[in-house]
Amino acid sequence: MTATTASSVPESVPTVDLAALRTLLDGEHAEIRDRCRAWLSEPENAPRPDLPLEEHRAQVLGWARELADAGETARGFPEEFGGRGQVGGAIAGFETLGFGDLSLLVKCGVQFGLFGGAVLHLGTRKHHESYLSDITSLRLPGCFAMTETGHGSNVQQLGTTATYDAATSEFLISTPDDAARKDYIGNAARDGRMAAVFAQLIVGGEPRGVHALLVPLRDDDNNVLPGIRIEDCGAKLGLDGVDNGRIWFDDVRVPRDNLLDRYATVSENGVYESAIENPTKRFFTMLGTLIQGRVSVCGASISATKVALAIAVGHAESRRQFGPPGEDEVVLMDYRTHQRRLLPALAKVYALHFAQEDVVARLHRVFTSDEDLDRERRELETLAAGLKAVATWHATATIQECREACGGMGYLKGNRFAALKADTDVFTTFEGDNTVLLQLAAKNLLTDFRDQLGELDPLGTASFFAGQVFETVAERSAMREVLTRLADDLLPGRDDQEDLASREVQLELLRWRSNHIRSGVARRLKGGIDGGREPFAVLLDCQDHLIAAARAYVDCFVLESFAVAIDRCPDPGARMLLDRVCDLYALSTIEADRGWFQEHGRLSSTRSKAVIKAVNTLCATLRPHATGLVEAFGIPETSLGDAAAVAGAAPRA
Amino acid sequence: MTATTASSVPESVPTVDLAALRTLLDGEHAEIRDRCRAWLSEPENAPRPDLPLEEHRAQVLGWARELADAGETARGFPEEFGGRGQVGGAIAGFETLGFGDLSLLVKCGVQFGLFGGAVLHLGTRKHHESYLSDITSLRLPGCFAMTETGHGSNVQQLGTTATYDAATSEFLISTPDDAARKDYIGNAARDGRMAAVFAQLIVGGEPRGVHALLVPLRDDDNNVLPGIRIEDCGAKLGLDGVDNGRIWFDDVRVPRDNLLDRYATVSENGVYESAIENPTKRFFTMLGTLIQGRVSVCGASISATKVALAIAVGHAESRRQFGPPGEDEVVLMDYRTHQRRLLPALAKVYALHFAQEDVVARLHRVFTSDEDLDRERRELETLAAGLKAVATWHATATIQECREACGGMGYLKGNRFAALKADTDVFTTFEGDNTVLLQLAAKNLLTDFRDQLGELDPLGTASFFAGQVFETVAERSAMREVLTRLADDLLPGRDDQEDLASREVQLELLRWRSNHIRSGVARRLKGGIDGGREPFAVLLDCQDHLIAAARAYVDCFVLESFAVAIDRCPDPGARMLLDRVCDLYALSTIEADRGWFQEHGRLSSTRSKAVIKAVNTLCATLRPHATGLVEAFGIPETSLGDAAAVAGAAPRA
Repeated sequence: MTATTASSVPESVPTVDLAALRTLLDGEHAEIRDRCRAWLSEPENAPRPDLPLEEHRAQVLGWARELADAGETARGFPEEFGGRGQVGGAIAGFETLGFGDLSLLVKCGVQFGLFGGAVLHLGTRKHHESYLSDITSLRLPGCFAMTETGHGSNVQQLGTTATYDAATSEFLISTPDDAARKDYIGNAARDGRMAAVFAQLIVGGEPRGVHALLVPLRDDDNNVLPGIRIEDCGAKLGLDGVDNGRIWFDDVRVPRDNLLDRYATVSENGVYESAIENPTKRFFTMLGTLIQGRVSVCGASISATKVALAIAVGHAESRRQFGPPGEDEVVLMDYRTHQRRLLPALAKVYALHFAQEDVVARLHRVFTSDEDLDRERRELETLAAGLKAVATWHATATIQECREACGGMGYLKGNRFAALKADTDVFTTFEGDNTVLLQLAAKNLLTDFRDQLGELDPLGTASFFAGQVFETVAERSAMREVLTRLADDLLPGRDDQEDLASREVQLELLRWRSNHIRSGVARRLKGGIDGGREPFAVLLDCQDHLIAAARAYVDCFVLESFAVAIDRCPDPGARMLLDRVCDLYALSTIEADRGWFQEHGRLSSTRSKAVIKAVNTLCATLRPHATGLVEAFGIPETSLGDAAAVAGAAPRA
Repeated sequence: MTATTASSVPESVPTVDLAALRTLLDGEHAEIRDRCRAWLSEPENAPRPDLPLEEHRAQVLGWARELADAGETARGFPEEFGGRGQVGGAIAGFETLGFGDLSLLVKCGVQFGLFGGAVLHLGTRKHHESYLSDITSLRLPGCFAMTETGHGSNVQQLGTTATYDAATSEFLISTPDDAARKDYIGNAARDGRMAAVFAQLIVGGEPRGVHALLVPLRDDDNNVLPGIRIEDCGAKLGLDGVDNGRIWFDDVRVPRDNLLDRYATVSENGVYESAIENPTKRFFTMLGTLIQGRVSVCGASISATKVALAIAVGHAESRRQFGPPGEDEVVLMDYRTHQRRLLPALAKVYALHFAQEDVVARLHRVFTSDEDLDRERRELETLAAGLKAVATWHATATIQECREACGGMGYLKGNRFAALKADTDVFTTFEGDNTVLLQLAAKNLLTDFRDQLGELDPLGTASFFAGQVFETVAERSAMREVLTRLADDLLPGRDDQEDLASREVQLELLRWRSNHIRSGVARRLKGGIDGGREPFAVLLDCQDHLIAAARAYVDCFVLESFAVAIDRCPDPGARMLLDRVCDLYALSTIEADRGWFQEHGRLSSTRSKAVIKAVNTLCATLRPHATGLVEAFGIPETSLGDAAAVAGAAPRA
């Protein structure tokens, strides 16, 4: 990455070639994105805000079948089972689907991502041959039956059991109590014929931990099979086109072959074997299949955020309210408060877009490589968890902000905000609760850290810790800040905004924060445990610190990805514009945590105020480009709802 | 107010008498609140999440009629028109209604608050005698037809006209274009028989600005009258039990008496007269009727926030997930992250409750006094606008946080979050958009400030500005912070948390911030305008600064109100608990803006970190009282939805 130094002057950026911007955004899967856009642009595929629940479900299934018939849903699967091996391409298509009805997106995610993914990644050749082409073609609608009423996040404690009966070579699937019923399972209430059921495997009386098995749910006429009870979860806050349900198993028998046995096998006479000896490691290896789901939800949340911003910017450019006496009223976009509401959020969605692209490329590499990329896989897991949390929270916050920025118009059901709000809401808690995911990411970071410490020679370790101690002392004695401030304040003529506009300075601030928080929490954990406290209690104590570490890591990664993406943009105009967008992302991120940067002597109070001023300046610089920046997303008109029409009705004074 | 000094030690607070806490919360209108609670507790009055739109509208009208028949809805009106003159009591009842279906709340707000309020406050005796008892009994359902498609916030630019025709002694009401159609008008689509229509009054060809007139919409058989066109706004993001509509007037004639003529009259032969000479002042005096609506929405948003917190705390106390190896899983409430999500929000809703009580008491005084309380009225307007913005944003953020804190369970429609989220969403933009309201509040603060400056003698003015300059110099040279930090860091044994627990220190920090921002923005505005810039451009430039001033003012007022309320609590146990809740509110408010406090030399970096630590400590101190604190709200079971039942299904490991 090169150091991009931006000027400090509130320069204006010339009009940008939107096609160049769009090309950069669409990246290598532009053609797949365009196919999906074309499909979404058909009027009959537009989101329909007022379908009753059952009609909505039927519509969503119909749409999914259409996509399957067109071959769009097999893309990510291996070629030998009718796919094209385009893991990254499949996610690009899924992301584009995120502009449309999000029930369809989630329905596809359940069928092709979770159910199909479980069979692909946890199953072996026999499962692939028997089921994959039926799954990708939607001839076999299925479920991913992991979550239970009693356990969502702590999957290791699931209550459902799968007990091997060597006499018949079958597994007995059982739901011991209502807490162990499968809950919120997509595709269960109406369409699912089979489920990948996660259960405690018991072989020869011995518990072997959570494993997945294929269990038929309904026959070809859609009748629920004996021993199975299914209840409809009914209406939800959103995503009503997805038929979530609850499932109970009453000693349901499935053949031995139904165990998805990539990581562990049970022989006919009941011998359990696994190449991964450590049961916890085995469990987390199996959970690795969730990575793709997280990356997909992350991408979808970015798309939904783009839709909200496109509607809000469109409204802000046409709606006039108040103005100088006797003159035309002013468009909302000219108000600084309005720029502050929309533009940093827009900059962040650009940043997240490029970070997501980076993660998808890593995912594609890890999932299609024949090598065992253990370290890369862990890094991917960290990024998938962390970015999903940051991006879905950004979606929730930005969609809300955009709704409010559209006033009463934004409250009408025809304007997509109702659906965007309701449908994306669950993104923050499904495919891993965000708070839990950030702790998972932090745990991984600390593992990396431990590895890194382990690799240092004893002298290196000592000097590493000495560095830490020195920093701590520097903070406590306030000398760092005093020196910084004196330098800031006493050198005449120094422009405080100038060096803040340097990408290297921005990156250095975010990197320093990430490293500092990470080493700080490592010290606290080590100190607590070395001091003899119960590890779980120590962990509880450091929980907010862990989450801060993961957030800081993600912020830093996002900025790095954005900077790299700009460097590869061939169009100088687009590059210049994106440089300012990237500045706004970086500085508004620093601004949001400027309390921390001051506490740690990394921003003087003067420079901290300069950050606020720089964000205002960047908002003004980018304001003329707001429309271009949202148009470059290439969102189909059909996805924008009635907003444009209503905004057009707003008059001049 | 006395200085309440709290200890710095993470003390435990003994179990508290919840009845004492509830008594304090319910205040002087406890009986009215209890009547409303009893009504809400009837199973047939419980919110029904799945009613189709038209049934929901019918249900809401039925409920409103029931309340009217029971005499509950006349309470705030003068006794001579069948009311009881209980302005504060009426708002207390309205607040309690906020625990239930919010469509009913808004329907009542439109009918009795806005429509009834317009007739009461803008009309004269003839209107009161003709209409008030029909309005409070709901025999005459009506609308408050102010907002138009083209103008929501900038009401002074409405397009609807009311032209006086001296030949017939009538007004002609007209909608010149679609931008001037009345929009989002509650009660219009289905039930309204009459509307208070805000229109540009034209008398003898001369425009006289916006005035309100009563215009019949439907006959007794509910047929829309000639010249009137009404369109249903249809489904909305939420509040579907309220029938919002659009109204066009095609030269509709109403008698001269239909002008609500408290502030301006038109004589039979067409002479316009008003006691308020300045048209802008006249306009804002008429808008004063909106104050009660804002205070009511504010109270309702606080109630909705309480419901969300009660559900989330209940879930957090029963739901277990993860734990030390081999032991029971831990309830969510024991996690620091979970405490951090819920407890500062809970502390803030306590603080807002008491601030609201204070504002309601002021409202009651201003609206029932015979004196002309001009200064008090302006202060009330400032507080009503500012607190409404802060409280409704707190509702939106907290309800979202609570939904997420309940995971998948929170996403089911039976659990109230769907309705709470959707219904309260518009609170941030109706009865005045929050961003606009904060600017209104800031403008009032600056007016007060100018008055205050005007009262100073020349020497006083000079020393006032000298003080400002000195502070600025102190900030810039960083010497204040350097000195503070040296004192903090070099004096051995100083406990940084200790003085943060002092109420006086907390108040001083919030007061200093409020005064500093206010005087800063005043200087900037004055500097810009004195420098010859166009006032509107200067205002745009300072917009975010203005909003910060209003927020800081509200934060300070809220803390002051909370502190005063604690002082009058007779129960020592409740007082001790509330003292800690108040600490948490104060310190989490300071924590949220610790970037600012450091920038302005009011917190050293060391003390800033101590604030974070103190918030963590307070969360741990209050954690055992979480259930008691939400139980004291006295929310009827029927308002909590299915959550309790589902939470009960969560098992132990």
